Amino acid sequence: MIGVGVVGYGYWGPNLVRNFAETPGARIASVSDLNTQRLELAMARHPCIQATTDAAKLIDNPLVDLVAISTPVSTHFDLAMRALRAGKHVLVEKPLTRNSEDGLRLIEEADRRGLQLFVDHTFIYTGSVRKLRELVQTGELGQLYYYDSTRVNLGLFQHDVDVIWDLAVHDLAIMDYVLPMSPVAVSTTGICHVPGGTENIAYLTLFFQEKVIAHINVNWLSPVKVRRTMIGGSRKMVVYDDVDVAEKLKVYDKGITVKNSPEALYKMLVAYRTGDMWAPQLDTTEALALEARQIVRSIETGVCLATDGRTGLRVVQLLEAATESMRRRGNVTELQTEMDAA
Amino acid sequence: MIGVGVVGYGYWGPNLVRNFAETPGARIASVSDLNTQRLELAMARHPCIQATTDAAKLIDNPLVDLVAISTPVSTHFDLAMRALRAGKHVLVEKPLTRNSEDGLRLIEEADRRGLQLFVDHTFIYTGSVRKLRELVQTGELGQLYYYDSTRVNLGLFQHDVDVIWDLAVHDLAIMDYVLPMSPVAVSTTGICHVPGGTENIAYLTLFFQEKVIAHINVNWLSPVKVRRTMIGGSRKMVVYDDVDVAEKLKVYDKGITVKNSPEALYKMLVAYRTGDMWAPQLDTTEALALEARQIVRSIETGVCLATDGRTGLRVVQLLEAATESMRRRGNVTELQTEMDAA
Amino acid sequence: MIGVGVVGYGYWGPNLVRNFAETPGARIASVSDLNTQRLELAMARHPCIQATTDAAKLIDNPLVDLVAISTPVSTHFDLAMRALRAGKHVLVEKPLTRNSEDGLRLIEEADRRGLQLFVDHTFIYTGSVRKLRELVQTGELGQLYYYDSTRVNLGLFQHDVDVIWDLAVHDLAIMDYVLPMSPVAVSTTGICHVPGGTENIAYLTLFFQEKVIAHINVNWLSPVKVRRTMIGGSRKMVVYDDVDVAEKLKVYDKGITVKNSPEALYKMLVAYRTGDMWAPQLDTTEALALEARQIVRSIETGVCLATDGRTGLRVVQLLEAATESMRRRGNVTELQTEMDAA
Amino acid sequence: MIGVGVVGYGYWGPNLVRNFAETPGARIASVSDLNTQRLELAMARHPCIQATTDAAKLIDNPLVDLVAISTPVSTHFDLAMRALRAGKHVLVEKPLTRNSEDGLRLIEEADRRGLQLFVDHTFIYTGSVRKLRELVQTGELGQLYYYDSTRVNLGLFQHDVDVIWDLAVHDLAIMDYVLPMSPVAVSTTGICHVPGGTENIAYLTLFFQEKVIAHINVNWLSPVKVRRTMIGGSRKMVVYDDVDVAEKLKVYDKGITVKNSPEALYKMLVAYRTGDMWAPQLDTTEALALEARQIVRSIETGVCLATDGRTGLRVVQLLEAATESMRRRGNVTELQTEMDAA
Repeated sequence: MIGVGVVGYGYWGPNLVRNFAETPGARIASVSDLNTQRLELAMARHPCIQATTDAAKLIDNPLVDLVAISTPVSTHFDLAMRALRAGKHVLVEKPLTRNSEDGLRLIEEADRRGLQLFVDHTFIYTGSVRKLRELVQTGELGQLYYYDSTRVNLGLFQHDVDVIWDLAVHDLAIMDYVLPMSPVAVSTTGICHVPGGTENIAYLTLFFQEKVIAHINVNWLSPVKVRRTMIGGSRKMVVYDDVDVAEKLKVYDKGITVKNSPEALYKMLVAYRTGDMWAPQLDTTEALALEARQIVRSIETGVCLATDGRTGLRVVQLLEAATESMRRRGNVTELQTEMDAA
Repeated sequence: MIGVGVVGYGYWGPNLVRNFAETPGARIASVSDLNTQRLELAMARHPCIQATTDAAKLIDNPLVDLVAISTPVSTHFDLAMRALRAGKHVLVEKPLTRNSEDGLRLIEEADRRGLQLFVDHTFIYTGSVRKLRELVQTGELGQLYYYDSTRVNLGLFQHDVDVIWDLAVHDLAIMDYVLPMSPVAVSTTGICHVPGGTENIAYLTLFFQEKVIAHINVNWLSPVKVRRTMIGGSRKMVVYDDVDVAEKLKVYDKGITVKNSPEALYKMLVAYRTGDMWAPQLDTTEALALEARQIVRSIETGVCLATDGRTGLRVVQLLEAATESMRRRGNVTELQTEMDAA
Repeated sequence: MIGVGVVGYGYWGPNLVRNFAETPGARIASVSDLNTQRLELAMARHPCIQATTDAAKLIDNPLVDLVAISTPVSTHFDLAMRALRAGKHVLVEKPLTRNSEDGLRLIEEADRRGLQLFVDHTFIYTGSVRKLRELVQTGELGQLYYYDSTRVNLGLFQHDVDVIWDLAVHDLAIMDYVLPMSPVAVSTTGICHVPGGTENIAYLTLFFQEKVIAHINVNWLSPVKVRRTMIGGSRKMVVYDDVDVAEKLKVYDKGITVKNSPEALYKMLVAYRTGDMWAPQLDTTEALALEARQIVRSIETGVCLATDGRTGLRVVQLLEAATESMRRRGNVTELQTEMDAA
Repeated sequence: MIGVGVVGYGYWGPNLVRNFAETPGARIASVSDLNTQRLELAMARHPCIQATTDAAKLIDNPLVDLVAISTPVSTHFDLAMRALRAGKHVLVEKPLTRNSEDGLRLIEEADRRGLQLFVDHTFIYTGSVRKLRELVQTGELGQLYYYDSTRVNLGLFQHDVDVIWDLAVHDLAIMDYVLPMSPVAVSTTGICHVPGGTENIAYLTLFFQEKVIAHINVNWLSPVKVRRTMIGGSRKMVVYDDVDVAEKLKVYDKGITVKNSPEALYKMLVAYRTGDMWAPQLDTTEALALEARQIVRSIETGVCLATDGRTGLRVVQLLEAATESMRRRGNVTELQTEMDAA
């Protein structure tokens, strides 16, 4: 039985607690939060756990084998390092750390101690993203042409990170999981509307060695919630609309065909799409429930997860490069590979 | 009665013919097309007009007062210049010309001869875009923050122009009409998937002197048709979805409010939007019908239109700058003003 | 070459004229309308035709072989009978006549004279309805369970007919074409909100000898346009949404499966659907263009159409029975078969 | 502090437990279920409660003040009567009982003992339905014309009740809450596709003394989930789409206007709607949380709720009448008033 301690009982923490509580082989041992009201809520819901405002106490609790960190990004490194040094496995909310150097140090510390380090890229465990990866990796889409994602909604200005580190991190994690290739350069533009604040709108273009392009549009100031990713290939194209409750994935059996007759041209221009569309049934298991089960199994067996510290680091490296390009109004930043960085 | 000659009876030409035919004060005098099958179709529909494969004959036809040019972009300049020199008013399909130098020469020629030069920015005449301009220009949206447009669908590779000149031209024309400020620089990325072809996907970021950002996403390879523009302001935000048949414009009475309490944060994050939404009734007059009426009136009275040659030139200058930035993988291109160019 | 005369140039007449004008083997010979303004519009668009306010003159015009009647329902019988007696083929807008007796007399007159009588059930010629029929008739859906249609929008009160004769006629025509069985009884409820007017909302339930039920919801006072038909079978179900521009037909590969485990129950209740969905590509030819071509061919070859007078009569018989049941607040009206009536 | 006992921990029970657990002034004292697996799940989540397979034990538990019954309909009466006789307040899941006689006896028993009897018409506590009532009752919609609801989805055949008692019960409860008038007669049609089963599709028309009509379409065999209610009035109309996550209520500022000009007719027929649309912001509090708070307050203060036993009885009376009409293929059943029945 793996004891889980959850640091941070704010927006996401309750989901971690609820899911680990119902995961076979795991139980919640402790919850910590600086806010006593939040802590009281945790205790009301889970009367038998240790609740504390002191994360150190949670980390040192001998009943805790896995420390799940769900706190502001700036605190990730210190909490995770402390937990690793206390001999605990660690799960860190995305993004892993606020820079790649910190991420690398966590990976090294975990390796040195033979501990597991996980990053909470929850989307990887949704039925939609797993099916998306399957479609891409089995060649169903043919040769890849583009990856285009929009993730916008009316959020609040965060003081801790900008919109890239808050929203684009999801797309970069999904892209890292789904695509069989890695970007080599990034051009980012963005804007900050609040004096002294961070960027609240950003546009990332990612270049690859292959004839593929990726683009991510993130915005905290949209009146509507849009979470749509399109992947185009030579054989098929797929639209992943996370806001659609009924049909999150739609696969269009039409790639690119160049027809030359003017008649074909007129027809295409008025038709909305050509070819059949297919919306596969998706596994509706809650992503975090599946993630929690796999984390428990990974700790028990030592088998690696797709969302380990290295994955978290790769995404942080992309976030760093994107931020650097944005500072220079879209001028390209070349990407180091994970190996280079190491 | 103004006689209209339409050069090019392909995809768009029939719409020009049909609309001018039903415009009071205008009548179709001649239609030309190199394709005799297209020409036969024109004659079947309009038995009483001159139909010719020779555009020069149409231009020289004394019954023709206005030459409407609906042909590939590369032919716009020669045809328009010839028509102006023959003393005819001219309407040119978008984009006006394939470079700003040509555009400037047409403007000068028209001015010299006291003729009217129009560019066919049809969207300007839709009820949606006119309402959009009204919302922005009356201050209803408050201080402007961003303009974000996506215009994608499954098209065909064009040999004449790339996706920027084919699709982004619409957004640039709408933006030029709706916003009270002009961009000062542009960063563009894009990709071409066909050897020897033109770019089929592109992303434009436009910078302004004000704290405003604009972004345009154009793509010929999307499996679905998306035509959505969002404009965000400090008081309200608007979504213009041209594919929505019932509610093309939605105005959200919520701008940006920074709230600090964590409770507010949790609420916002799960709510899809805050504030009422309002979808104004729009004028459903066919855009081209309204445009045709205004063109006829402009010729009769000499009054200027919002879609004159200078407007067409401003958009071509943006297209040129965007193309240049794309050649340099997103490095910023500073924009000259129309005056500078002249 | 078949000469076509169109009686009535109001809402639908121009579509008839435009489509027959572009149908090979047909040409428009004459148009009549009581309204001279409408007639002037017809002449502006088609300068070479005979335009008259006198339908009798159109009927007697020797260049007219086919009389297409697009006038109020109450005038259908007189005009059609006159045309048949003048030896002309006849196409009548839906519904064929205002009662079945009139319909029967037209059929007999046409048979006696060896003339073709068509009813303008345009929906039958759409790609959607043809595919719908194919899905049902090939057994793709399995054993049929129900046919459920909603056809509502904000219309105007008509003085000529009620909402059943105006809107439900479409559904009855589609149902007659798509289903392999015929209703045996009908229960209808409805309401009229205007003193002295006709019913503006109605609900029809149709019973069959088989274990099938059909329901039609028609309403002139809906704020939104809904045109959705669902057909459920033991193997698959299909949703036909005529307002959806991109995916009018969606086929769900899930029929009815009774599972007994409580776990399955909980899963089903929270899932939005089970099984894949498939949206077939549809022929986007304009329905009326296809109909016009088939009518011309039918006249030339004598081959019968799916939309002949008998079809029109069957639908009128259903309309009559539905109206009778509505007068009695939903009490069932048993249906005579076409044979019985004859 | 009110102690709550929840009988039945199946689909809905966990929601009752979770919400009462977090309601100030209430705490969960006991949970019972015949299924030990379900009971174990309850204990894992709420370690400090009494869990039992014996509902009688729960009812007799002195820590239980309120018994919430979330079991099959056929068991409602016995469990509720037993709880009332034990001196406990009672909340019964909808429908209150399987016939009106049982409902009446529960009301009388509760009255006699001065206990509160509630029916769990959860929808009444949603922001949408409360706003809907406000729009109707304040006269915002003008004179009422119709109430039209569709509630369909792919469910399972239930053995306990038919689709009317399972789904239409929601609509009847909402209608009872929203409309200022009561139906006087009902005509119902339906069908059962499984030998020995209950009706799985049904259509209810409700008649009123006023010029109003109501219609409810319920179906367990729909491939898609539809939950849409339209209410039309002389001034405005409203669409309540419960499946729409962002805009559940849309108010159209267009009632019925009869225009006579043919031009107006042509315009109306091609326009999708006229008048502005307005989607008010809705309270997103979880309905059951609000209901639980109001139930606790009602017990504490004795103030009546909109969802008391009498409300539950009125709805059961409608369900009975609808069922009777369905047995007679749509022949109208006149409705007794609550008073008559008593």
